[in-house]
Order: sequence, then structure tokens, then C-alpha cells
Amino acid sequence: MTKRGVLIVVSGPSGVGKDSVLRMYMPGKTCVKLSISSTTRIPRQGEVDGEHYNFVSREVFEGMIARHEMLEYAEYAGNYYGTPKKWVEDTLASGKHVILEVELIGALKIRALTPEAVFVFLMPPSLKALEDRLIGRGTETIASIDKRMKAARNEILHAGAYDYIVVNHTLQESCEMLDVIINAAALRTSHQKDIIGEVINHA
Amino acid sequence: MTKRGVLIVVSGPSGVGKDSVLRMYMPGKTCVKLSISSTTRIPRQGEVDGEHYNFVSREVFEGMIARHEMLEYAEYAGNYYGTPKKWVEDTLASGKHVILEVELIGALKIRALTPEAVFVFLMPPSLKALEDRLIGRGTETIASIDKRMKAARNEILHAGAYDYIVVNHTLQESCEMLDVIINAAALRTSHQKDIIGEVINHA
Repeated sequence: MTKRGVLIVVSGPSGVGKDSVLRMYMPGKTCVKLSISSTTRIPRQGEVDGEHYNFVSREVFEGMIARHEMLEYAEYAGNYYGTPKKWVEDTLASGKHVILEVELIGALKIRALTPEAVFVFLMPPSLKALEDRLIGRGTETIASIDKRMKAARNEILHAGAYDYIVVNHTLQESCEMLDVIINAAALRTSHQKDIIGEVINHA
Repeated sequence: MTKRGVLIVVSGPSGVGKDSVLRMYMPGKTCVKLSISSTTRIPRQGEVDGEHYNFVSREVFEGMIARHEMLEYAEYAGNYYGTPKKWVEDTLASGKHVILEVELIGALKIRALTPEAVFVFLMPPSLKALEDRLIGRGTETIASIDKRMKAARNEILHAGAYDYIVVNHTLQESCEMLDVIINAAALRTSHQKDIIGEVINHA
């Protein structure tokens, strides 16, 4: 019997480096899959359908909501973003672990639905370090940075709701910590319920 | 401020290989300490005081019980075995992780006292493999093996009370899994409570 994979939810404030950590982490990980969100937003330059997002129409997205086919979804700035349930479920059933990168609200929704999932909060070393990163991107206005820093403070204050905190000092370290968390999650008793019976009965 | 160490409790049926796994695991682990049990039993040939056990008199042991200085203790075959609380507490406070090797009853007692500890059950690949190991030792009578196998069945049926199950296919694999579990435990949010305040306040 294939052992079900582990669902790992990774959150953290905008600019903390979630994408960078996962981009470094994923290559070569044959037993871990990164979920691709669906969105109704127009692709930005360089964004590839099915790689960065599944780009869908508003009609398609709202149909999926109506049929309860979204594990979580939210609307930001007039566009929907969400995680299709079926792909996540099929991938876990095939024995592979699934990483979802979602924001605080989405993470809390998933926590309520799937208590066996593992919740990881990627934390900046300090608010100053986060602000420096946002400024360093060079793509944000001062007003936008202020707004993101306020949101970051709020998200960090909710980090206690996650199972694990990974302080993103370096990408390499964060990848190693993420790996440890995923490997440990697969060893949890709650994830290996069948073993007790197997050992007892296959004397 | 020194971050407190993690308490790891390792149990498993007699003969599963707890000693062998820990003997392979410990060397070179500067941030992990293995707790030495105290006992009133007479040292066997080759056993070194302060290495295999702290050998103490019945009077000394009962004094420690009376002063609540034992984290857990039990009496087997007329001898006391127990874990002195102070050494465990001091070592955790110094930032080092502590491994306790204790039986089911001791583990359940510690679980009630220290819910933040991590409980690992070392599982044989099968009851047959366990029996083969006990027979292979060549030190047990058939009656003694039968008794141990009955006890093993009972302990395995309680494995669900532990946080993690490590199936001891090979010592090497079990050491790697134990390492993953300990490293993940140190990343738990419950173990890094101060970080949220530190990040928020050290802007």
C-alpha cells in the first residue's frame, strides 16, 4: 500500500524569501511536489501558465468555487487566487509530499480542514532585514513598502499558529530546515498509523 | 539568551536495538547528551559506574524518591531504576538536547509531566525479526523469550501514544531518522516562542 504524502503549508510575510527558498529547495526532490495556484489575474511578463500559476478565467474560477473544488482561495486587488483541491489530493494519495505556499488567511483555512498538515512560517531575521529586502527589490514605492511592513508585523504576530518557524538567515540553511521538517513529518505516528497493526499481525 | 534544549524520550521493546542505535548515534553529537539512569542493582561484569548506570544504594535512591528528585522511576525484579531530574533539567537549560531511554511506563509518566518532550518509539520491522534478535543474543531462555515477546506485543500496541515511530530496519537509517526528529523538534514554534517577540521588537 502506498503511504500517503505529507501536506506542508509554507507561509511568511511578503519579501521574506518564500519563492527563493522553494526555488532552491525543489530541484531534485522527486518525492516532493510544489502546488501551483490558480489565478484569474493576467500573466505578468515572463510568467508561464502551469508553472508560475494556472491562469484561468473568472468564470472557470467561480465555477470551481461553486463546486467546492478549491482547498482555499482569496481575492486580492480584484483577482482570485486559490489552490485546486483535486491535484493536491491526488498527489498526496500517490505518496508524494505537497508544498503549498499560501498567505496567513489561506493557511488558517487549511489548518481547519486538514489538521494533519504541517505548517511552516518563514520568518525574517528582523523587521529591518525584511524592509531592506523589500527596498532592495527596487519594484515597490515607499507607500507600498509601508503597507507591506504593516501586513508583515501582523503576519509575524500570528506565527504562533504554525507548527514550525524557520528563520531565513540564508537560503541554504532554510532549505535544510525545511527538509528536516518534511522528513520528520513523514515519521510522525499519526502519519504511520498502519505500522502498529502491520508489525503485530505479520509475525 | 541560551535556547533551551529538547527532551527526547526513546522507548521500544526489549531487543529492538535501542542501545545499539544510541551507541551509534551519540559519538560526535556535541549538542545532544544521553541521560544515565540511576539504579540500585549490582553492576554486571564490564558495567562502569557513571557510564552504563549511576550505581547507588537503596537508601540513596529512596531518599531521592522522597525528595521528588526523580523524573521517573520504577522497580523491576527488586531493583530500582530511575532518571534523576536535576541533571536533565540543568542539561536542557544549558541548551543541549537530552535523550532518555526509558520503558513504556516511564515514558507515559514523563509525557504527563513534560508535554513539550518528544516521544520516539523504536519499532522492530516485525515480531519475527524481534524474536530472531532475542534468540540471536544467546543469553535468554525460551521462557524468558516468550515473556519478552508478550511484553513487546503490549508495548507495540501502545506505540500510538508516541509522537514518532522509527522502524529499525538498519542502525544507520534509524540514526538518521532520530537526527531528523531531534532537529525538527528544535524548530517547533512551541520551542522558539521568543522569536516572534524578538523579530517584532528588534526592528
